[in-house]
Amino acid sequence: MSIYIYTLAAGALALIFSLWAALSTLGKPEGTKKMVEISEAIRAGSKAYLNRQLKTIVVFGVILAIIFFFLKNGGQLDIAFAVGAVASYLTAYIGMNVAVRANVRTTKAAEKGTEQAFRTAIIGGSVTGFAAVGFGLIGISLLLMYLTIANVAILIGFGFGASLISLFARVGGGIYTKAADVGADLVGKTELNLSEDDPRNPAVIADNVGDNVGDCAGMSADVFESYAVTLVAALLIASSVASIYFAKLFFYPLLVAAGGILGSLIAMLFMRAKHGNAIRALYKGVLAAVVISGVLDLAFTFAMGLPIGFYIAVLAGLVPAILIFWITDYFTGNESKPVIKIATASKGGAGTNVIMGLAVGLRSTWLPVLVIIAAIFVSYAATGSVYGIGIAAVGMLSLASIILTIDSFGPITDNAGGIAEMAGLPSSVRKVTDKLDAIGNTTKATTKGYAIGGAALSAVALFVAFASAVGLPSINVLDPIVTIGIFIGALLPFIFSSFLMEAVGHAANLMVEEVRRQVRTIKGLMQGKAKPDYARAVDIATVNALKALVVPELIAIVTPIVVGLVLGKAALGGLLVGMIPASFVLALFMANAGGAMDNAKKYIESGNFGGKGSDAHKAAVVGDTLGDPLKDTAGPSLNSMIKVVSTISILLAPIFVAYAIL
Amino acid sequence: MSIYIYTLAAGALALIFSLWAALSTLGKPEGTKKMVEISEAIRAGSKAYLNRQLKTIVVFGVILAIIFFFLKNGGQLDIAFAVGAVASYLTAYIGMNVAVRANVRTTKAAEKGTEQAFRTAIIGGSVTGFAAVGFGLIGISLLLMYLTIANVAILIGFGFGASLISLFARVGGGIYTKAADVGADLVGKTELNLSEDDPRNPAVIADNVGDNVGDCAGMSADVFESYAVTLVAALLIASSVASIYFAKLFFYPLLVAAGGILGSLIAMLFMRAKHGNAIRALYKGVLAAVVISGVLDLAFTFAMGLPIGFYIAVLAGLVPAILIFWITDYFTGNESKPVIKIATASKGGAGTNVIMGLAVGLRSTWLPVLVIIAAIFVSYAATGSVYGIGIAAVGMLSLASIILTIDSFGPITDNAGGIAEMAGLPSSVRKVTDKLDAIGNTTKATTKGYAIGGAALSAVALFVAFASAVGLPSINVLDPIVTIGIFIGALLPFIFSSFLMEAVGHAANLMVEEVRRQVRTIKGLMQGKAKPDYARAVDIATVNALKALVVPELIAIVTPIVVGLVLGKAALGGLLVGMIPASFVLALFMANAGGAMDNAKKYIESGNFGGKGSDAHKAAVVGDTLGDPLKDTAGPSLNSMIKVVSTISILLAPIFVAYAIL
Repeated sequence: MSIYIYTLAAGALALIFSLWAALSTLGKPEGTKKMVEISEAIRAGSKAYLNRQLKTIVVFGVILAIIFFFLKNGGQLDIAFAVGAVASYLTAYIGMNVAVRANVRTTKAAEKGTEQAFRTAIIGGSVTGFAAVGFGLIGISLLLMYLTIANVAILIGFGFGASLISLFARVGGGIYTKAADVGADLVGKTELNLSEDDPRNPAVIADNVGDNVGDCAGMSADVFESYAVTLVAALLIASSVASIYFAKLFFYPLLVAAGGILGSLIAMLFMRAKHGNAIRALYKGVLAAVVISGVLDLAFTFAMGLPIGFYIAVLAGLVPAILIFWITDYFTGNESKPVIKIATASKGGAGTNVIMGLAVGLRSTWLPVLVIIAAIFVSYAATGSVYGIGIAAVGMLSLASIILTIDSFGPITDNAGGIAEMAGLPSSVRKVTDKLDAIGNTTKATTKGYAIGGAALSAVALFVAFASAVGLPSINVLDPIVTIGIFIGALLPFIFSSFLMEAVGHAANLMVEEVRRQVRTIKGLMQGKAKPDYARAVDIATVNALKALVVPELIAIVTPIVVGLVLGKAALGGLLVGMIPASFVLALFMANAGGAMDNAKKYIESGNFGGKGSDAHKAAVVGDTLGDPLKDTAGPSLNSMIKVVSTISILLAPIFVAYAIL
Repeated sequence: MSIYIYTLAAGALALIFSLWAALSTLGKPEGTKKMVEISEAIRAGSKAYLNRQLKTIVVFGVILAIIFFFLKNGGQLDIAFAVGAVASYLTAYIGMNVAVRANVRTTKAAEKGTEQAFRTAIIGGSVTGFAAVGFGLIGISLLLMYLTIANVAILIGFGFGASLISLFARVGGGIYTKAADVGADLVGKTELNLSEDDPRNPAVIADNVGDNVGDCAGMSADVFESYAVTLVAALLIASSVASIYFAKLFFYPLLVAAGGILGSLIAMLFMRAKHGNAIRALYKGVLAAVVISGVLDLAFTFAMGLPIGFYIAVLAGLVPAILIFWITDYFTGNESKPVIKIATASKGGAGTNVIMGLAVGLRSTWLPVLVIIAAIFVSYAATGSVYGIGIAAVGMLSLASIILTIDSFGPITDNAGGIAEMAGLPSSVRKVTDKLDAIGNTTKATTKGYAIGGAALSAVALFVAFASAVGLPSINVLDPIVTIGIFIGALLPFIFSSFLMEAVGHAANLMVEEVRRQVRTIKGLMQGKAKPDYARAVDIATVNALKALVVPELIAIVTPIVVGLVLGKAALGGLLVGMIPASFVLALFMANAGGAMDNAKKYIESGNFGGKGSDAHKAAVVGDTLGDPLKDTAGPSLNSMIKVVSTISILLAPIFVAYAIL
């Protein structure tokens, strides 16, 4: 029992910091009336979306809870499920509500310079980051105290609660943000020659809302999910391996999680953009979190009397976190070689731009995959058991708070730039917000790399947990039923993302038509004399995102159930085997292709190959448009998909074992 | 022994038909001096490419043959390897040499109407189709007569010979054809406002050469490979399963292959475009081949005294062939719902066009995957063993001759249209060739679907053969080493295709520059008074295709060797498990996305959404440009990749078993 004191304390510390960060943010000045007005419009749209999304989730959630109730320990399972879902949504809700207030305060702080603006944005972002790990670790600790080790399997309910929220938040938020973004850009930039965030563009508020519901709420739910399911998977694996360290294996992941929280908390001190060097501050912060967590975890390992091999497994998760940061930066970062390659190809037109963009995305997959492979290999070799893989995953996800903080920095600075532009602030302020916005773009890509890698590693851990849950010591891939499962698994990410791409294409077109309609019918709009009807655009994004998410969600939830029930547990194991690697690589491809095409456009905008307005620029804008749903909708949504499929497979494992048809 | 009489006779019949078709083609009139001149330029370029490609292949081949020589039965293995490679290259060589002569004759025949032109093109295409199965079946039969059943494992050398050629022909031909096509279109259509095949475009001959080296030689080597390795896999599986029908199992696949040849031969009679309905003739031909082969196979099954279950396995391969035809047509065919969706999205610009194009490609994967899954399930269930899967694959590939015939029809009619345009023939002729060209485009997409499905099914059969070759009764996917293999396997198709996409982007840009240079420096070119330097453009495509293919080829050949040697046979098994489904789905996505975007452009060109020259059309041209390397380079090359990786894994299995490091 005593170990829970530490984990509850670490969780509480995270929540206290998050609360402090929230209060500190709210205490900062908001700026002019116009700025507040804009910020309030963004706030209202974001809140409205989250509330309406909640209604859809409740419908799905209640149906699933009723099904779970009939499982063994159904009541407990439902409690765990509810706790996981509430914790995740609460994190997203709190985080986003602060983010939509931190944006205008960042704009205001930009008057004083980069350092102050940076600090405001990063403190605002840390609310999400630390709330996630706080709720996550406390939730799991409390459930464990209540459950006893023998019933640890019920924890998967917690993981699935997080998964369900993540699936909705990622998919819905992803469609929302890109429908608004693509729609706003297509008419605004191409037809009307408006700059980004021009207040005359009717879709501009929807675009800014999208940053929050997608990059902030969606990402937070995704990483919260990875955090939760990874801990659950490690605990499930711990309960199934034969080891002389049995009880210790059970508490070790929780301590590693606590170490990550403490390391990240201390690392927040390093997050200061001295002399205006913001990107350096962010990297220093991550590196500090890795090093401090690493030192703390070493101490924990010794204190628990575990062999050094277990610690090596933790390192096998901590180190990839930073490696994937660097790799993603190499493939998608501003002025990187691959990005310049795409920019150069833009000279041949939009066709060659997108060919090269997809080529770069495809190529970018190899290094992250090798890093995750190395993590699997090292963690297994060091511990001599699959438990090591679970620990590596926990090590990687123990950094969730600092990574989420950096990620939430993105939408805050993006919004801050938008508010500065819309409120017509002086160029000195806009220069600061633009700079932070550009950094936010880079970190959005790198944290996405982390989220994808983390999801893959946690899915591997979940797969191991699944195999032990259904009692499959090995899966015979020579059994055609398993082969069929594998093919279905590999197919799943392609079908799933096809719906998301189509949804963005469709909703963006509706947005285009709405913007054109307003420009046509609202007199004086383009002259800045009349205000556009922002709410209509917000509504279009909201309604279409919520409508479009139903089918892919159902596919993700129903497919493993059908395969498990009809073809049995071995085929379902095959499905996971086929799905996890294919989704991982596909997600990397999509996210990095999009990130690289985005920055290729920015590279041209900064004056290369003719700069803004040149033919090369027009070609690069097409690439950026294609890249948008790839990197912000389809790619990251695959994270949620693989975890939800994995957790539901474990959750319903007893049914598949007992009732499968084949 | 007596069974070989039947298979040799069937093979000989195919070769005789092929010879008759070749002579019949050459006996037809060639048309005006100008037409012959153009045809000769295409011919010279095609031949030059195949000859230069051969040199590179010989280097790779000799190195590999030396390695194989040191394996058990190395001498025999090398003989089989050489026979397989020579048979494949000979097929491609003969087929292409007739195709580049059938093109001008089709143009000439078009003067008399659709029916005559269709007949000329289809007879010309049948040379490749029947040469492939003739050489394939005779080669395997002769090797078997020489080997005895005990040494049947040596047959894999034959399969690998076919694989090596296919890898080169698909990748090299694929890069060539799209570098030329994209390059020619980018300057020709966009900058110079020239129509397709305008003789003033310096890249126009290279584009027509590309049709032959890519769609004809590349496709022929791909399908020949599938044909060869499928038969080999079925024989290897037959030699490893315990069955009361042992000896019969061994001859059954050969008879099914013979049945396919006879069925396809008879089906050629139905290939007549009565009243000018060419598309109907093609479908009738395929359907007739399926039905007649099916009836013959039923007779063979009874004659051999095998249970009906084996015949059901054959049907499980025959039926998917036609289903995939229909499915591909649904997703990519002219005026199909998904294609109209893409065309509609073009109204929003190039960005929404490519978003929707990729969405359609992603979506299109599910039905073909389900069909292949059903084939695996039914064939296994009907026979009660993995042998059934091998038989289903043989059943599907037994249609190779008719499918290759229809496929080769594509480049011939494409060239015929080009020649008509370049020679300035009257519009009545062009109308006929345009119509056949459009049909050729559709069949190129549908036969590609068949090739991808066939490759997947044959790869599954090869995987089963691999598992028995290395003595893996099951592969434990819970072993992290296997997990690592699976991740590498899923990664492989992404990395492999990244090189191909990049190669096309790069070579197309060089082509663009060369065309621009010629237009700038050759006086009177645009006025039609001076001839462009076609040879330079042909040379650029040739050199760059051959240069760009080295790295991806090496990756495909070296990866399985390294994984097998370092991580061992189980990891290599994992690699195949990860690679086959991921490659299959990725290939479907790429091929169908490209096909659908191509036809979306054509749909607009036929007068919808503003027709040619409208903004929607410009957007659709961008999508078509992206689709080109997806559908003709990266997508189909994955077929060759998965088969080469599978065959080399089987070939070197003894080494991996004996010497693996881990």
